Formats: sequence, C-alpha cells, structure tokens
Amino acid sequence: MEKINIGILGYGVVGTGVAKLLKEKKQLLEHRVGAQLNLKTIADIDTTTDRGINLGSTNLISDGNLIIEDPDIHIIVETIGGQTIAREFILKALEHKKHVVTANKALLAGHGNLLMKTAKENQVDLAFEASCGGCMPIIKSLRESLVANNITSMSAILNGTCNYILTRISNDGSSFEAALKDAQDLGYAEAEPSLDIDGHDTAHKLAILNALAHGMEINLKDIHVEGIRNIRPEDIQFAKEFGYTIKLLAIGKIHDNHVEARVHPTMIPDSNPLSNVNSSMNAIVIEADATGQTMLYGHGAGMMPTASAVLSDIADIARNIISGGNTRVPILGYLEDHIQHIPILNMAQLNTRYYLRFEAQDHPGVLSRISGVLGENNISIESVHQKGRNANGKVPIMMITHLANEASVQNALKQISTTQSVIGSPVIIRIEETP
Amino acid sequence: MEKINIGILGYGVVGTGVAKLLKEKKQLLEHRVGAQLNLKTIADIDTTTDRGINLGSTNLISDGNLIIEDPDIHIIVETIGGQTIAREFILKALEHKKHVVTANKALLAGHGNLLMKTAKENQVDLAFEASCGGCMPIIKSLRESLVANNITSMSAILNGTCNYILTRISNDGSSFEAALKDAQDLGYAEAEPSLDIDGHDTAHKLAILNALAHGMEINLKDIHVEGIRNIRPEDIQFAKEFGYTIKLLAIGKIHDNHVEARVHPTMIPDSNPLSNVNSSMNAIVIEADATGQTMLYGHGAGMMPTASAVLSDIADIARNIISGGNTRVPILGYLEDHIQHIPILNMAQLNTRYYLRFEAQDHPGVLSRISGVLGENNISIESVHQKGRNANGKVPIMMITHLANEASVQNALKQISTTQSVIGSPVIIRIEETP
Repeated sequence: MEKINIGILGYGVVGTGVAKLLKEKKQLLEHRVGAQLNLKTIADIDTTTDRGINLGSTNLISDGNLIIEDPDIHIIVETIGGQTIAREFILKALEHKKHVVTANKALLAGHGNLLMKTAKENQVDLAFEASCGGCMPIIKSLRESLVANNITSMSAILNGTCNYILTRISNDGSSFEAALKDAQDLGYAEAEPSLDIDGHDTAHKLAILNALAHGMEINLKDIHVEGIRNIRPEDIQFAKEFGYTIKLLAIGKIHDNHVEARVHPTMIPDSNPLSNVNSSMNAIVIEADATGQTMLYGHGAGMMPTASAVLSDIADIARNIISGGNTRVPILGYLEDHIQHIPILNMAQLNTRYYLRFEAQDHPGVLSRISGVLGENNISIESVHQKGRNANGKVPIMMITHLANEASVQNALKQISTTQSVIGSPVIIRIEETP
Repeated sequence: MEKINIGILGYGVVGTGVAKLLKEKKQLLEHRVGAQLNLKTIADIDTTTDRGINLGSTNLISDGNLIIEDPDIHIIVETIGGQTIAREFILKALEHKKHVVTANKALLAGHGNLLMKTAKENQVDLAFEASCGGCMPIIKSLRESLVANNITSMSAILNGTCNYILTRISNDGSSFEAALKDAQDLGYAEAEPSLDIDGHDTAHKLAILNALAHGMEINLKDIHVEGIRNIRPEDIQFAKEFGYTIKLLAIGKIHDNHVEARVHPTMIPDSNPLSNVNSSMNAIVIEADATGQTMLYGHGAGMMPTASAVLSDIADIARNIISGGNTRVPILGYLEDHIQHIPILNMAQLNTRYYLRFEAQDHPGVLSRISGVLGENNISIESVHQKGRNANGKVPIMMITHLANEASVQNALKQISTTQSVIGSPVIIRIEETP
C-alpha cells in the first residue's frame, strides 16, 4: 500500500484535531483511501505542551521550513492561522510542489488569488474545505455536486459566535453584552471578538464562496459588512411578533452583470429554513437553476468538525496521488482561464425592504418629522410601531418599509439623525423575504 | 480540449433532464470540467415523441445495445428504471468497460452487489448520486466528505410523496386517501402508489446509504419496512399536542456488531431538524463522531434536481478520465476487500418508545383489559389519552409507552386484537427522541 507523508504546520486546536484523526482513524482511512496517510512531522513554536496525542513515530519540531523542504512530504496542512507567517509558509510550500490544505479563511479572502495562481503554476492542489462552514461540505458541493448549475443565490449563517449570541438574545432576552460574555465564557467567542461580531469572519467566507459559486476572483474589499453589536432584544422581539427571526447572514446573489455580496443582520421569515438554525450551528441555503433550493447544516467550527473537513481534503488529494490525477478539479471549480471579473454591486444601488429603529425623546411631532424625511426620500412605510417609554424615558419607534433604495435610506437616516428629538444612530436591519 | 462521449439509455423524465443539461450547459460544463461532454446517442423505444430538446448532432435510436457496443462512448447513463432490462444493459455496459451512471435505486438495492462486483472486475466507475435524495449530495458526502468519520446514525426523509401526504394531513386535517389523491393530481404520486407509500422506495435508499455509511454489503431484505397507509389526522393531531411531528423515516444506526435499519412512520420532537422538512422536500441528518450532527436538505425527486445529480457523477467520471485516474474512489467509499458483512438487527430485538392507537367500542373495562395485557408483557405506559366517541360511535384510545421491546409490543397487540371490544388492528408509531 502506497504511503503518503503529511506535515502539519501549527499544532494548535485544529492542528491537534487533524493529528488526532490521522492517528486514531489510521486504519479506517487506509480502508477508505487505499493509501497509508502517514503523519510524518508537525511543526510548532511550542514543542513541549502535551496535546494528548500519542505521536508515535511522528516528529514534533519547531521549524516549519524543515517540513516544507522535506522531499518525502507530499501534503502540507497549514493550521497556523493569520496572514503573515501562514502566507509565507503556504507560498513556499506550493513553490516546493507540495499540495496544501488550509482552513485559513482570512488568508484566502485576503490573498487567495495569489495563492491559487502559485498552486496552478506549480501544478499542485490547494484545498480549503474547512475554511467555510466547518464540516459542512460547502466547497465540495459548489465545485463538484452543483457542476451543471448556475447558482442564483446563496444565503448563509457562517459564524457560530454571532448565531449563538443572537439565539441567546432571542431565547431569554439577554442584552448583546451579556450574551457575548456568555459566548466568551463558553469558548464560542474570542477575548477580542471583533473579527466575529463585526461580521468580518463571515465576509471572508462569503468572498471565498462567491468565487466558487460564480467562477469569479476572490474579492473581499467590495463586500458590504455590518456586525451585530447594535441588535437589541426589542428588535428580535419585534421581529418575532411579525413572524421573523434576525440572523447575521452572508448574502450572495448573481445578477446579469454583477454580484450582490453583503453581510449584515437580516430579518428573515420563519418559513426560511435558516430561521431554525440556532445556537452555534451554521447553515447555507443555495438556490440554483437545476436543483432549486438546497441546504447544508452543521457545526461551523470546533476542533473535530474542522479537522473532519481538513481530512476530507487530505483524502481527496491522496486519492488523486494514487490514481495519478494531480489537480483533478480546478481550485475554484472553474478552469483558471474562465475565472471572470464580476463586479460586486455598489451597496448604494441595493433595493430591499428595511426594518428601522429610532430612539426618540417623547416630544410631539417626532414621528411626523421622521416619516416626513422618509417620504421626501421616496421611502414608503409599510408599518409603524411605537412602544411605550423605556426605563430611561426614551421611546423606541420601529418601522418597516416597502421596497426602498439603500442610498435613499442612508440619506434619510442621516437627516433624521440630526433631528433634535432623535437620539443616537438609527438601527437598520434589512429584510429578505426569499428563499 | 478532450471530448468525452456520453450515451443515455432511456429518454423519459430523467433522461430528458440529463439531455437538457448536457445541451444547455455545454459551455458551463466545459469551463468547469475541462472537457467537452458530448451527448452522442440516446436510446429509447419511443424515438418519435418530442421532448422539447434540440438534439443537434445527437442520435436518437431505439436499440440500446448500439450505445453499449459503440467503442467511442465512454460514459453510459441508465435512466430506464426497473430491474429487468436496466439490469441487463448495465451489466453489459460494465462488461464493455463503460463507466455507468444510474439513478435506479430499486436496481441498486436489489442487485447492487453484483453490479459493483462487475464494475470492479472491469475497472470502471459505477456512480449513483441521483439514486438517494435527488440533488442532495448524500453519496458524495458519505464517500468523500465524511471519510475520517465513523457514522453512528442516519435518519432521513427520502420519499417526497410520503412527506407531501403527511404534510397535507398535518396542515389541513385531510384524510390519507384525500391527501394521496391530491399528490396523484399534482404528479407527486404514481397511479400505483404502493412503492412510495408502503415505504419500499425509502427502504431501497436506506439499503444503499447503509452500505456507504458503514462499508457493508447492500442488504435490502433485512430492512424492516412499514408505510403510512394507517396514519390518520388524529395521530398527527395527538403528536402535535405533545410537540411531535410524524414523518416516514429511514433510520440507520450502527451498534457494536450490528446495524439497526428500519423504515416506518416515526414520531419525532419539534427540536429534530427533520420536523421542519415539509411538502415534497427530502433531508438527511447524519451523526458522525468527528462532525457531530450535520443535515442535507433539498428536492429528492423531479426532472432537473435528479438530472443535476446525474451530471455531478458524469463530471466526476470525466474529471477522472482526463486526469488519468479511473475508479479513483471505491464504489462504496471503502476498498472492496474491506466491505464487511454487518448483520441487521432483528426487529424483534428493538427497544424504543411507542405510540399506540386502539379503536374500541365504548364498553366498560376496555381500557383495563388493554392496559392489563400491556402490563403482562412488561410494557409500561407513560400516558393514556381517551377521546370522545367518533361519529361512528367508536372510541379512539392513544397511549405512549416507556422504553419497550418490539417483540413484547407485537405480542401484546396480538392479544389485544382478539379482545372483543377492540376493533381492527391497533396502530403503532415508533418514537425517536434523538437527534
């Protein structure tokens, strides 16, 4: 039986999970892949902490370069994270004609085009199933299963931290701050949570998924990103009363000559399958012309779900090696010559429905002033809900608009913010009726 | 660009869908696969009916043997259905060293072991993504994505006809007969609906999925199968009141040295993601040791969803051909030498909870007699619900048991059936609390 040597760069949570599966599932993997997947070397600055893995004949070293330069190693798994040393190591590994498996969505979103070009030039595979949606087979589905489909839209919950926080606020009326604190205590959120709760992690994943779905270059910078810091229990309560749920969604839709790509809190009706995706679970709904609606659901993070996705990439590459078919599937699922430049819609041109929440002092004429400005900006109101005063004496005013233009809404909100009786910045939540 | 010639046997609904995608998505497929997928010939007894496809240079002939014997054809798609001529054609095609793609679950469940052996001997691929769950990538997930997992359980809604009927009964209190009639009018159910509503179609799919999940031979005959003919609105209403839904589930669970494999109406709690899968949609929940719970959801049937799955198989095989890696993934995802004989648990040994419905004449002592027999058989009752008389003067009695043994339940029901005041056969619905 052929022996395929594997090196892991980074012996943290995911690296440990990958090592665990390679060791504990050695026999299963041989029976399924038809090759010995031999974990030859792991590199990490920390070579002393016990990760609870019996390494046997596997070397644990501190210099990743030795893995990259080892002529016996076929596949390198990068689980360092970040965009500095991970980037250097991956580029060097590809140049050394190593197949690379990574879960590093930030790096792919920021430098994926360069990494893919380098992989292509060196005729090796660059695989990243674990980068989006943890163990859900999103990337395999887009590259392989949906091969004969034009994908019209994707909407997805791709960040477990945000989904946990929103679920907590929804279930027990916690404040955002209390729910975040709980998420941190449970290990769902980092001490510095901005990457998650401000939507950037979700945007990284959307940049990758858009490229795969539409055969376009990875484009992070044009994705509109908003996080969940401003969501309050009253927003979720209001949504509930009207049969809606609030989720942080990644939305990617194809139009004639552009793509819509945005990440923001979104009100979705209870009939949307994503509305039942709770706690730290992730899911993606894909609409495609042949399949219609499909959904994948699973753990989007965590040691073993992520390691499972890394292993599916390793097995794919191993199956390529033993059957003689390197780089069998193009990295984005499209031949490199056919990767298109598809512009992302400028957010100002978006037309959708909006939920707006204003906080006002309980003075006469406030509602008239707000609705007047909306009217002047051609924004027509579907319903208005004014609740009693808060404990602090302020009055929340919630509105739902008919279809309106984003630039007009932003313009109106700017004007309304300057109204004397309106306090702070209004909160916007966009509404998606479909799927 | 390499040209890969394809032949289709059977120009019915699915065959037409496959032809449509090969024609209309010709350019997309070239850009994704890197080969020309050329539909060279279609064979069907009916060569005259217009299927609305512009065939161009594709031949439409009546003798399938000419496709099998054509030395230029690389991949043969079987969309005839049934277990007679389809079986002969597939065996002959494999012997002629053609790769075969089929959606024929009945054939695979009945003769899959022989077909796989023949494919292996001839070193060609036999692919069947479309056989289970339509466009959902179940088979790819089991063979490739979950490669490093031990799959502990699967539970799935795999028949759109049954799910449509149960959803109708649940939504508007239709009788089974009325819901079936509607399903037939809408084209969801066949004029002869037994294959669907008696659970056989679901069992065919479970036999295939068990083999893929656990690396075991296809075994249809030992799967316990019950359909949905006896489900009444009052069962679903009762379930609802207690936070449950009734679905026809395929259940496959691995134990130390056997597999549980059963198809029957099942009461599941509203917290089970399958409880939200309605109308003709299909879904599968897979529990595996590394990933935890994952779910796939989508259209389980229909021309284009099924054709989409067939195309994913064609693209896989084409990618194998151009990269030189025939039979890259073993047919069941395990090397043939490691396919095990795992026995299926005898149903009599099952332990689970039960919902039981009896219909009785409103005579004194009936309830005492029923509960007495259950007690004698060591079946302990969790709750009893006796409703008012039906229009026909009969009294329905519903019970939920604690964990009980199947053989004991069957024995008790046999005794109770002979009780004078009990009318007809009691109805059994098994309860699944997990996932």
